[in-house]
Amino acid sequence: MDLAITLDNNSSKPLHQQLYEQLRQAILTGRLTPGERIPSTRFLAKSLSISRFTVTTSYEQLLSEGYLETVMGSGTFVCQQIPDDLTQSNPIENIEKTNSSSIKLSKYGETLVNIKNVPRIAEAKLEINFRYGTPALSEFPIKLWRRLLSRYCNANLNWLDYSTEPLGYQPLREAIAHYLTRSRAVNCKPEQILITNGTQQALDLILRLLISPGETIAIENPGYLSARIIFETQNAQILPVRVDNSGLVVEELANYTEQNIRLVYVTPSHQFPTGAILSLPRRLELLNWAQQTGGLIIEDDYDSEFRYGEKPIPALQGLDKSDSVLYIGTFSKVLFPSLRIGYLVLPKSLVKIFTRAKWLNDRHLPILEQQVLAEFIESGHLDRHIIKMRSIYDKRRQVLVKALKKHFGKQAKILGEKGGIHLMVCFKSKLNDEEIIQRAASLGIGMMSANPHYLATHSKGEFIFGYGELTETQLTEGIHRLAQIILCS
Amino acid sequence: MDLAITLDNNSSKPLHQQLYEQLRQAILTGRLTPGERIPSTRFLAKSLSISRFTVTTSYEQLLSEGYLETVMGSGTFVCQQIPDDLTQSNPIENIEKTNSSSIKLSKYGETLVNIKNVPRIAEAKLEINFRYGTPALSEFPIKLWRRLLSRYCNANLNWLDYSTEPLGYQPLREAIAHYLTRSRAVNCKPEQILITNGTQQALDLILRLLISPGETIAIENPGYLSARIIFETQNAQILPVRVDNSGLVVEELANYTEQNIRLVYVTPSHQFPTGAILSLPRRLELLNWAQQTGGLIIEDDYDSEFRYGEKPIPALQGLDKSDSVLYIGTFSKVLFPSLRIGYLVLPKSLVKIFTRAKWLNDRHLPILEQQVLAEFIESGHLDRHIIKMRSIYDKRRQVLVKALKKHFGKQAKILGEKGGIHLMVCFKSKLNDEEIIQRAASLGIGMMSANPHYLATHSKGEFIFGYGELTETQLTEGIHRLAQIILCS
Repeated sequence: MDLAITLDNNSSKPLHQQLYEQLRQAILTGRLTPGERIPSTRFLAKSLSISRFTVTTSYEQLLSEGYLETVMGSGTFVCQQIPDDLTQSNPIENIEKTNSSSIKLSKYGETLVNIKNVPRIAEAKLEINFRYGTPALSEFPIKLWRRLLSRYCNANLNWLDYSTEPLGYQPLREAIAHYLTRSRAVNCKPEQILITNGTQQALDLILRLLISPGETIAIENPGYLSARIIFETQNAQILPVRVDNSGLVVEELANYTEQNIRLVYVTPSHQFPTGAILSLPRRLELLNWAQQTGGLIIEDDYDSEFRYGEKPIPALQGLDKSDSVLYIGTFSKVLFPSLRIGYLVLPKSLVKIFTRAKWLNDRHLPILEQQVLAEFIESGHLDRHIIKMRSIYDKRRQVLVKALKKHFGKQAKILGEKGGIHLMVCFKSKLNDEEIIQRAASLGIGMMSANPHYLATHSKGEFIFGYGELTETQLTEGIHRLAQIILCS
Repeated sequence: MDLAITLDNNSSKPLHQQLYEQLRQAILTGRLTPGERIPSTRFLAKSLSISRFTVTTSYEQLLSEGYLETVMGSGTFVCQQIPDDLTQSNPIENIEKTNSSSIKLSKYGETLVNIKNVPRIAEAKLEINFRYGTPALSEFPIKLWRRLLSRYCNANLNWLDYSTEPLGYQPLREAIAHYLTRSRAVNCKPEQILITNGTQQALDLILRLLISPGETIAIENPGYLSARIIFETQNAQILPVRVDNSGLVVEELANYTEQNIRLVYVTPSHQFPTGAILSLPRRLELLNWAQQTGGLIIEDDYDSEFRYGEKPIPALQGLDKSDSVLYIGTFSKVLFPSLRIGYLVLPKSLVKIFTRAKWLNDRHLPILEQQVLAEFIESGHLDRHIIKMRSIYDKRRQVLVKALKKHFGKQAKILGEKGGIHLMVCFKSKLNDEEIIQRAASLGIGMMSANPHYLATHSKGEFIFGYGELTETQLTEGIHRLAQIILCS
């Protein structure tokens, strides 16, 4: 067993501390898995050429902290229950329902403790992971980005100071406004654009400023879980509305006049997770609903840049005549997630209050990357990158669809393949979703059920297939292995 | 009159649009000030060698949007009331108290609308501006920073993906934990450190998670206005507690047992704005209060890196035995504000709920700068930078104090000069603060009264002097000019 431990005799840090940290890290990152036997102190001491006492000291610390456990007569093992679910392995889940501390939380804090199923990031641990939401990072033009960073990180140091623009760096807002007007038929001026720390902050700000506890929000069912969780944090009443091949079934909103819906959350370009495109009549119907009732619409346009052979339908925001749409976009899919830049196009009447809230919440985004991104867009790099990626994703999509059809035929129904970087598949299988996920994992395949995205209803055999970051070989091989699991049971 | 207009005949943007944008920009950034006469269309057309029609078109747009106004028979002027108070000139103020839109706000939204005196960033428009809070940006090692950016923006693209660590990049948390343990006697492990988008987000998260509307927060009086505003957004009851030469008068907390104080906000290293250092007996007394009552303490250690001749007193957090201190630090003063990186050291029992909140609020900070900062700290650059800046600030401080003593003698009492990058001066003057500020501005001097930082009481003649970004020549000259105003009236 090679634990890949490297100890530095010249470090000021004692050897037992180094060993402790590296073992702990190996456990937390999953290199050592729960239940795995670890080497005896004698064996490890010998293989690392250190004293057995050093190893024992490290092990004892790990035992006392609950990372390891001894089983009488059979050795030392990685504990089945790792203490730090707050670290890499699972940063979000498993908050004790009873607040472990004596410190009293606010109502918001209590709500957060009680929320279940906070979505976590699916790490790309498995060999072929069909997780959704991650673009093809290896195709990102990193050298160009580095050059732009260097250019803006220059001798003119004015940008180091606080910005006086909580809405975001003005040239970036101008660039985004041009881009949206041109490519998405969004009807906006730079003054309406708030640069946010991703879609997540845009949603949080909207909820925090506009929705009082108990007010009703209608969501697509199934719909994007991460958005729903934000609505839950604000103690909103959440009303699931059915989705079909043309997206949200808008006419069903009329059945809920008594609920007094304040807000409808939709993903019209590529419904999450089904991939349906909200039809133009439905769009007009939804806008009409907003105008009639005074309701608001959140239009989450998370991956509309990627369309395959379909003509784009204008954004709801651009069709809106009554200032009722809050339009959200992000660079997480089209560039990269750790950039943490998204944007919110606001009705003019809400600009001031959102400006103030952004200023009071966290002042503004870091400036350097905003400068770089503004130039990236204005110089045409964004358009070029989108065209390139659209072609890459289109090929991957075709490979995935072909493999699914080849291996599954009528045993798999493919949905939502006309855009975005994921599609949805409904399998006919005797296995339940959890069994499929586990068996797939044993073959190195990461699978994500659509079920968590359902509210009040349940699905079986529906899986989301993110294909953005997988090569054509991986896609073919992944579906090939999957067929062995799903069809042979 | 030189308007510094540059038109590009080769641009695809029409000339009148270019002219419109540049004039509007000149108005918004203050190059053209309210009430200022602007050139006639005939004159401007001639001086720019463009048609008069082009100029007229631009002017008409600016007139219709309220940037310009015509006065019959005397010409065209910059409007006294500029429409966009949401842009550079004043991004935060002047939200109409009556929400101008028909869109209903949440309780939080309504609270934000009603908050007065939201502090704005003081721009460095004036020749010598004693604004506080901005470090000497020209001394920042930008070339080193750029080199580190290039190093981390490299071919290994794993960092482009979402982080699985909402608390922040692990090596950065380790670096900060080492730094705080060593330099501030803070008692923490990396697992307790949450990387935030500046102090502002740390305060917002604390209030949001721990304080329910109506609960009581004790603050220093005078105290940091930006913190108080956050407390107001949460509808907390705010209790001002007196400050003297040894900082917060802790014994006064005992007078308020009926108010059931949940939280005390203090700036013990360098009280804002008086600069007093909270004495060790007071620190112990405050911790004792927390232990007795179960109350919490926010320790905002915003500029403790800069001390002049004083031995550091250990942080409250390091003296605490009952997990009642939330310690906040920032890199805005010690590096640069637009980096937007601060941190919060949490009691262990609160780590999970803050992790979850950060994840739901905005996922995590951008990764690239976190990597760069981690290396900056670990390689010793931070320590070197602090030593260098301490020496620069010390000299500036001495020059400022000397100039104040020379020109004002007993007419000015200097407070809080032992640390930080600002001090406070109490002037004896017949003028009120507003008169002093206005007359100083007419001589190119920016002044900031301490009065907005008082709650329930008022000060007169107390001014905060930030000296971090001013050269020794500017400091001497600034005080020289100021003496003419304050002493000669």
